Amino acid sequence: MSRTLGDPATTAIPGFEAGAAFVDGERVPIGEAKISIVDTGFSRSDVTYDVVGVWNGAFFRLDDHLTRFERSCRELRLALPHSREEMAGILTDLVRIAGLREAYVETICTRGASKGGVRDPRTFENKFFAYAVPFVWLLRPEDAETGMDAIIARTVQRIPTRSMDPTVKNFHWGDLTRGLYEAYDRGAHYPILLDADGNVTEGAGYNVFALVDGRLLTPVSGTLQGITRRTVMELAEQAGIPVDAVDLPEAEFRRGSELFATTTAGGVMPITSLDGEPVGDGEVGPVTRRLRDAYWAAHEDPRHITPVDYSG
Amino acid sequence: MSRTLGDPATTAIPGFEAGAAFVDGERVPIGEAKISIVDTGFSRSDVTYDVVGVWNGAFFRLDDHLTRFERSCRELRLALPHSREEMAGILTDLVRIAGLREAYVETICTRGASKGGVRDPRTFENKFFAYAVPFVWLLRPEDAETGMDAIIARTVQRIPTRSMDPTVKNFHWGDLTRGLYEAYDRGAHYPILLDADGNVTEGAGYNVFALVDGRLLTPVSGTLQGITRRTVMELAEQAGIPVDAVDLPEAEFRRGSELFATTTAGGVMPITSLDGEPVGDGEVGPVTRRLRDAYWAAHEDPRHITPVDYSG
Repeated sequence: MSRTLGDPATTAIPGFEAGAAFVDGERVPIGEAKISIVDTGFSRSDVTYDVVGVWNGAFFRLDDHLTRFERSCRELRLALPHSREEMAGILTDLVRIAGLREAYVETICTRGASKGGVRDPRTFENKFFAYAVPFVWLLRPEDAETGMDAIIARTVQRIPTRSMDPTVKNFHWGDLTRGLYEAYDRGAHYPILLDADGNVTEGAGYNVFALVDGRLLTPVSGTLQGITRRTVMELAEQAGIPVDAVDLPEAEFRRGSELFATTTAGGVMPITSLDGEPVGDGEVGPVTRRLRDAYWAAHEDPRHITPVDYSG
Repeated sequence: MSRTLGDPATTAIPGFEAGAAFVDGERVPIGEAKISIVDTGFSRSDVTYDVVGVWNGAFFRLDDHLTRFERSCRELRLALPHSREEMAGILTDLVRIAGLREAYVETICTRGASKGGVRDPRTFENKFFAYAVPFVWLLRPEDAETGMDAIIARTVQRIPTRSMDPTVKNFHWGDLTRGLYEAYDRGAHYPILLDADGNVTEGAGYNVFALVDGRLLTPVSGTLQGITRRTVMELAEQAGIPVDAVDLPEAEFRRGSELFATTTAGGVMPITSLDGEPVGDGEVGPVTRRLRDAYWAAHEDPRHITPVDYSG
């Protein structure tokens, strides 16, 4: 992607080079962005969030991310203190202040803190936070070309939907973190978790797909309804590749001739090894390549992008 | 409990009246105690904690709480930056600074933040926080005498041990918070969650007990191994009341002639209504009363208490 370094439009306001945050109505450098340790967003993980990418000076599917974020807040009965237009304005502001052409932009709504010892969360004042930092790659740089070494986690199961709705984006990552440590222990880096029925769900921040007998399959439930996932499903359909969201048993997933993961923090990420064995021939497959290219090309599709106004 | 107001030993240092916290090596008023929004203790709920009570100028079972806290850190592979002696010193300091004879004292260890974009949690610097605030009562004041109105949650299941080990005290409260809102919706205030097999687990911050055919029963698994729970089991044994930790099906729990909940933030708390129906005759039962009295009396047992040195 092209980028003109030194372009005045991409210069951070001094102090905001590492990123900019919105906290208690103020714009602060990311290093000063803090939350009270008695906000139940921390102390009860009573919080939802969303992440939207900025690529080449434009938000990608901003409206879809804010729609999901607003839905998540409603599901948790959190009252967002800002309208969608105000949030879009705040996010634009943060990207501009930090001078970022490529950014990882997060919105957060927490339940807030108890006042005067009353522990009833219905009485708390809900809080909105946001920040923009340089684009975050979930994939390690050394895996960008060769693909991910994934494992199916054996020591931990994904938190079930009956306990925590995964379509409400949340910070309940204890199971995913356990999976991450299991992956490290087994010499790999990227866990994929199963549910109690042995169906594939998702990984530590990514949805997964398998190309099985020419059909692209992805878990229908027990997982975040990722916007990158949705984009890839739309792009596959446009490319004439059959794609279905299904209950995806581990054995079926393992039959995949190609596997990949999807996330805002990296797009379409090939999985080239599973449990130490190569997937297919161990190279990035043609369908994965094609969808990866289509995904980045979609970042120039005017229906999906919201250019950032850097003039302030 | 006796307390001499105005006693110099119980006067807060000005500014610390609402509580004192230990953050980044500094003692700060609780209102200024904050954590970075990019610490994964917040953004991945990658954190453990413990809560110890101070009653009548002494910690109750401080060593047991710190033992459990250290075990929780080990289980999550968090490296505590302080020895047990240092932590005990910090906690004592906080209680003294805040001038509290009765206090709710929390220790927290977070994974910390990514540095330079590297997302591998093994590379993060783990962080220790602590705070002391005036004693927190989980029970609403209006329920202290008459007991809790509990429900068995129908819309949500407790996060299973295979996903998140409940014996490692954690902030994954999404299921408990959902239970809390279900309780409110049903005109009650205190949820009790079941597991996938229909066994009773725990509530939003409390273990539960049922007196069934003269035996005191409490869930053996799927729940925090509470220190108040342990204290009550020890006190029941000493009083000649048979007590067992068992798989506790909902139907068996419902047979209880007395029900109660236990937590550091309130001790033994009678449950006098369940799903809108009175438990037994709807009054606080004799076994519950006896154990509640024994619990507070144990706060004068020299084996369990660590007096706070208020002289600084």
